[in-house]
Amino acid sequence: MTDIDRRTAVLLALAAPFAARAQTPTSQPQAPDMGQDMDMSGYDPKVHWMGNEQIAMLMYPGMTVMDLIGPQSMFGALMGAKVLLVAKSLDPVTSDAGVTITPTATFESCPRDLTVLFTPGGTDGTLAAAVDPETRAFMADRGSRAKYVTSVCSGSLILGAAGLLKGYKATSHWSVRHVLAGFGAIPTDARVVRDRNRVTGAGVTAGLDFGLTMVAELRDRTYAECCQLMSEYDPHPPFNAGSMRTAPANVKAPMVKMLTAFTKKAEALASTRAG
Amino acid sequence: MTDIDRRTAVLLALAAPFAARAQTPTSQPQAPDMGQDMDMSGYDPKVHWMGNEQIAMLMYPGMTVMDLIGPQSMFGALMGAKVLLVAKSLDPVTSDAGVTITPTATFESCPRDLTVLFTPGGTDGTLAAAVDPETRAFMADRGSRAKYVTSVCSGSLILGAAGLLKGYKATSHWSVRHVLAGFGAIPTDARVVRDRNRVTGAGVTAGLDFGLTMVAELRDRTYAECCQLMSEYDPHPPFNAGSMRTAPANVKAPMVKMLTAFTKKAEALASTRAG
Repeated sequence: MTDIDRRTAVLLALAAPFAARAQTPTSQPQAPDMGQDMDMSGYDPKVHWMGNEQIAMLMYPGMTVMDLIGPQSMFGALMGAKVLLVAKSLDPVTSDAGVTITPTATFESCPRDLTVLFTPGGTDGTLAAAVDPETRAFMADRGSRAKYVTSVCSGSLILGAAGLLKGYKATSHWSVRHVLAGFGAIPTDARVVRDRNRVTGAGVTAGLDFGLTMVAELRDRTYAECCQLMSEYDPHPPFNAGSMRTAPANVKAPMVKMLTAFTKKAEALASTRAG
Repeated sequence: MTDIDRRTAVLLALAAPFAARAQTPTSQPQAPDMGQDMDMSGYDPKVHWMGNEQIAMLMYPGMTVMDLIGPQSMFGALMGAKVLLVAKSLDPVTSDAGVTITPTATFESCPRDLTVLFTPGGTDGTLAAAVDPETRAFMADRGSRAKYVTSVCSGSLILGAAGLLKGYKATSHWSVRHVLAGFGAIPTDARVVRDRNRVTGAGVTAGLDFGLTMVAELRDRTYAECCQLMSEYDPHPPFNAGSMRTAPANVKAPMVKMLTAFTKKAEALASTRAG
């Protein structure tokens, strides 16, 4: 029994009264029997503890692993959901900073009908994935039927290159957000942008805010708040340099410079695809 | 050339004037030549762009992968540093939520003298690692000489079990923070707790705040702010349930219940070790 099985077992025991009620919607809400020492008066009977979502998270060489793991840490808490790490093959995939992760599904074995299709971002690896025929075909196909089509950071370049953002508001890492217009999207400056069934997050760490937003969408607010407390997401950044609005000039200048080549390559990609 | 090599190459080119100055500390600060189109007047000449830190991040079955990747996403941006993912063997390690990562070093191949020794947390997997003789011996040995001994989330239980927190203020995930007293530590409620060379973060997502704190410690504030902007760490949690102080009662109750068994097992572990 793996740890996640154990966790699910505990949660299932906890959620049983709710699950039972979900199957008999006409019964009256009542407090579950949680033991003598618990005050359960605050329990929300509307929490949807169990689900059966099919969530596919794309992986490719050079991805930024934090783009993947932020959302995964929230999706992974969805009891009953299946979270797949999908790549071209089952060979381990190495991120831009050298973290190697083993996929759990391939483009072929990934379910055809998904609840959520997700892609992380990166820099050169992301541009390579965006123009890779197999990756584009996979994203375009699953994206055409997925209930939600999503990304974090420059992953939205992959969505755009697959034709999945035409006419949609979307965001990206600050260095390439404007590039989305080249794919027919409407670049939008927000931490998490939702337009119909497209949900995109800003750079890297926005994956946590994106993930919580998706959990609330897939289940409900209380479930998402439970995930937030479990992951103690009560951020206290020691500095205030996390956006182009707040970072000091001596921070913005070298970072813009560092990403100039990436930005230009992304612009070239978008102009090619739009042409 | 991997993406991280490319990134480092770009950064090295960017940082060259600073690196050169660092080698000749008596020379006068001057604006680096960053090209005609950049206003570099805001550049901080004190930024330490290059380093040579040896950072070892422990991995074990059942770890919470977000505990690892939050800090790794910041450590991974330290130019010149070596960030090792260390486990008992080079066999891939699977997290509590099913993410499998390949180690890059073993207990044997890990350098003896480290700049930073780090461990992520988890639940049952963490308790197993905390009592595993090889893991304890590795942590106690490297921790005895490391410049910084650090953890995020319940990883501090592993530090405590290895005898590394006696007399030190430290924090942990809210569900087991009080348990640290059993290891002779002084449980402290803060996002990131530093006491001399022990630096511990609170639950899961505190790894981002911890990581930025460490980058500022290892380099300087401007470098950390650059990392913050690059990872767009400008958090906007959609809800305010991330701590026991702010979460609603109907969120706290089921999460406390869900972790009761883990908390009790951690208490038992600490009482055994203290006895």
